Amino acid sequence: MIKVRIYTTGRCKERWLQEALAEYEKRLTGQMEIEWILDIQKITPPWIALDPNGELVSSPAKKLSKFGSRLNFLIGGPDGIEKNLLEKSAWIWSLSPLTFTHQMTRLILLEQLYRINAPSQYQK
Amino acid sequence: MIKVRIYTTGRCKERWLQEALAEYEKRLTGQMEIEWILDIQKITPPWIALDPNGELVSSPAKKLSKFGSRLNFLIGGPDGIEKNLLEKSAWIWSLSPLTFTHQMTRLILLEQLYRINAPSQYQK
Repeated sequence: MIKVRIYTTGRCKERWLQEALAEYEKRLTGQMEIEWILDIQKITPPWIALDPNGELVSSPAKKLSKFGSRLNFLIGGPDGIEKNLLEKSAWIWSLSPLTFTHQMTRLILLEQLYRINAPSQYQK
Repeated sequence: MIKVRIYTTGRCKERWLQEALAEYEKRLTGQMEIEWILDIQKITPPWIALDPNGELVSSPAKKLSKFGSRLNFLIGGPDGIEKNLLEKSAWIWSLSPLTFTHQMTRLILLEQLYRINAPSQYQK
């Protein structure tokens, strides 16, 4: 079981997003345990920062496997991630050079985690 | 008013995704008119193909503005876009080198169109 902690700011206001995140968490049951921590200052190393200027990869599985059974992700707020936290990241991963809302970033991250865990039965 | 036609395959089964797309279409009212066409063979040039191997850009606004007031987007199914249609594209745009479901691609596309149209009041 992989323990995933996602450090981010602000609650999800949109109902569709809450439903979407719940759906992916459900699909990940037994493979990954997702914990949301709404205080980015509580993060402990090593962590992976999600930032549009980070490294673009087509398959994150290999990179993520280096972190073993604990994955800490950091998603910044509307103004991105503060320099201090960005510099201390073990890896800066860019989901896309496009700017996404931090809420959309949560959804894309869960979808990618799900894709890594269930590639064979995954309905693209 | 910009007319956006999105050619894709298959309906959205997930309720949260239907809600999310409806929400973005509502926000785009008066600026963009979105039409979904569930038959990619009906597409007429010029069109923009969405493909992970296309061009990555951080701000698509300038690229898209070249197409004037009509934007035709092509989103492939689970097996991507057939070569024939990809080759005839006016532009191949990559939202990310990651593979997204075609359903997630719809949502990210609408979110980016909304971002282009409403950058000032946009709550990241």
